[in-house]
Amino acid sequence: MSLCTFTYTKSDSYRSRRGRITTPHGVVETPAFIFCATKGSLKSLTMEQVRATGAQIILSNTYHLMINPGSKLIETMGGLHKFMDWNGPLFTDSGGFQIFSLGHGSVSSEIKGSRQQVVKKTLLKVTEEGATFRSYVDGSHYCLSPETSITTQLELGADLIVVLDECTPFHLSELETAQSMRRSHRWADRSLAEFSRHEAQSRGLYGIIQGGIWPHLRTESADYVNGQPFFGHAIGGSLGSSKNQMYEIVDYTTQLLSPDRPVHLLGIGGIEDIFCGVKYGIDTFDCVHPTRIARHGGALVPPELNPSKGTASPRDHLNLRNACYTNDQMPIDPECPCTTCAAVSRSYLHYLLKANELSAFSYITIHNMTFMASLMKRIRHALDEGTFDELASQWHLGTTS
Amino acid sequence: MSLCTFTYTKSDSYRSRRGRITTPHGVVETPAFIFCATKGSLKSLTMEQVRATGAQIILSNTYHLMINPGSKLIETMGGLHKFMDWNGPLFTDSGGFQIFSLGHGSVSSEIKGSRQQVVKKTLLKVTEEGATFRSYVDGSHYCLSPETSITTQLELGADLIVVLDECTPFHLSELETAQSMRRSHRWADRSLAEFSRHEAQSRGLYGIIQGGIWPHLRTESADYVNGQPFFGHAIGGSLGSSKNQMYEIVDYTTQLLSPDRPVHLLGIGGIEDIFCGVKYGIDTFDCVHPTRIARHGGALVPPELNPSKGTASPRDHLNLRNACYTNDQMPIDPECPCTTCAAVSRSYLHYLLKANELSAFSYITIHNMTFMASLMKRIRHALDEGTFDELASQWHLGTTS
Repeated sequence: MSLCTFTYTKSDSYRSRRGRITTPHGVVETPAFIFCATKGSLKSLTMEQVRATGAQIILSNTYHLMINPGSKLIETMGGLHKFMDWNGPLFTDSGGFQIFSLGHGSVSSEIKGSRQQVVKKTLLKVTEEGATFRSYVDGSHYCLSPETSITTQLELGADLIVVLDECTPFHLSELETAQSMRRSHRWADRSLAEFSRHEAQSRGLYGIIQGGIWPHLRTESADYVNGQPFFGHAIGGSLGSSKNQMYEIVDYTTQLLSPDRPVHLLGIGGIEDIFCGVKYGIDTFDCVHPTRIARHGGALVPPELNPSKGTASPRDHLNLRNACYTNDQMPIDPECPCTTCAAVSRSYLHYLLKANELSAFSYITIHNMTFMASLMKRIRHALDEGTFDELASQWHLGTTS
Repeated sequence: MSLCTFTYTKSDSYRSRRGRITTPHGVVETPAFIFCATKGSLKSLTMEQVRATGAQIILSNTYHLMINPGSKLIETMGGLHKFMDWNGPLFTDSGGFQIFSLGHGSVSSEIKGSRQQVVKKTLLKVTEEGATFRSYVDGSHYCLSPETSITTQLELGADLIVVLDECTPFHLSELETAQSMRRSHRWADRSLAEFSRHEAQSRGLYGIIQGGIWPHLRTESADYVNGQPFFGHAIGGSLGSSKNQMYEIVDYTTQLLSPDRPVHLLGIGGIEDIFCGVKYGIDTFDCVHPTRIARHGGALVPPELNPSKGTASPRDHLNLRNACYTNDQMPIDPECPCTTCAAVSRSYLHYLLKANELSAFSYITIHNMTFMASLMKRIRHALDEGTFDELASQWHLGTTS
């Protein structure tokens, strides 16, 4: 049985590195972006289209899939890879983020899937055993424990899986953060025990570093994960209230981690975040940003095409719903290698969005995914060539210092 | 400048024929199905996906495009082919069907695009000059006359275009039908005059046969179109109140038409309709059926996979929303050459529909389009081989005599 492996070469830019994660379903060249197939589908795309964008690896959410259609059904159907027609590396999360964020109401839009739906709080109880919650599909009760999260992810058949941790809201005190972090460590022990009970040696299990904004807690959490036989490490918990604070925490945390394991930054993946994360030694990122903004008409562009560059609130994308694109014959990005930019104009995409034509979402999602996959390729190339800092400065939009 | 041409070989089955329409954007082997890109998009698909289904020719609706984004804008963008990335033969209708059906309220669902929207009657006035209607987008007034319909279709840049006719409701008397038909003939004269004023010789103009359910009126209308320099003929107007009456009218009308011109059956394209239509000499069909049912979970299947075959109300498709597909590991049709059937199970598609994932529509639309394109290919092959009647009997679901 082949095991997951990770190798890397240190780059000359700060803590950045150029690596390679090998999984039972193929290789991920790092730094890599992990695209979100939240409910077992990349929203408006077929998996054939996803492969054509250059995506190396995708992530599905345990929380959604355990509720509908259920991990047992997916296992019966031959696993999530076969079910959704994805034959590459697959990452699943623990399910915790959605359950706790629903409970705390902080990132409920993550769950809604649509802005129109009303979301009820579904987290019923959190104990040492785990979390009890109500299904948003049929109201039935579920328990997510460290053990059920692992067995569910193994039933789904993911290559890279994550321990369950307690996701705490941003406003928690230092004491509460420490208590929650230590519970997450106890849960991680139970996750490792459950993982070892299965024939799962070919999968890679990620431990999570908690500790919020307190350096000594991050240190304690890093010491914990370094001492356990995890395949990889994921940075979780509160990353503060600003981009600069997030970068400080990531910078601080990555230097504490055992360098022989891949490091994933959970749920973060804006373009500036990626350049900063790579600099600090992050190997993989996941974020709904490129696929979510596509469904609202947002098309990622390089800085030289970005009208918001240097303004007070620069964004990394154009809003194709804006009337200024009505007559714009240009593709989103003339330099982009995607099939959308080869085929249609901004004018057409603007029209499709206005007319509520579903193909708009497919066209823009294809562009955004290809754009991100190409950007990560350029980043890897720059790390190989020793030109990463130069590339990063070209992509700086002026949001952060 | 190359002209549209039509050649055919008579088959041995009744009035059926195997033909070929050549247009400035390529060839259509007939009998052919014309897929509806109503608003300049095949709903959930990119045009790259449309091409991969084997679709030869698509149809867009003048009514929708003249309102949004406007034919002038599309002309500025290089024409509808370039605008929507379709480089094959393109058919446009006159815009009349939508305007009149909205006015009469008979097929308003055609216009709605969604079942949720409330549609106001927008037809304001019909005179000898033409029809005045209100835009469903911004309420502004438009006039559709024989002349503006032609110029709009030429601005869009379609290869095959249609004269404006008055579309009458089903309940009209013989006298009213005759009066309306004669107005449509006068409008066709004006359409021909307008067409000849443009450098449009490379496009093919279709005249429409009206006359409702009255054979002598169908004869009068066929005599009219045969006597005018149309490239092709389209059968329009009321086709009665039952499938059998429709087939009688089509059978009666096709024998009246000059055999050297392609014959299109407007808006009809169920599988049984196609077999009957081909038998009576119809060369092309257009219908939203395969793409519309896809968005409601309907997947076309051959009779041997059809659970409704032989029942009181047989349909040509499976409803993948039905709970019986929850655990169904089969593809929609194991014999189907489409990328959907090669990739995913009925169980996955059932799940995607339940989860409101947009990719469901793409997957099922790809299947239905490939299914129809393949069926038309089999029909053409059977006509070549003299086995059409045998093929037709295999596909008989028992709906009609």
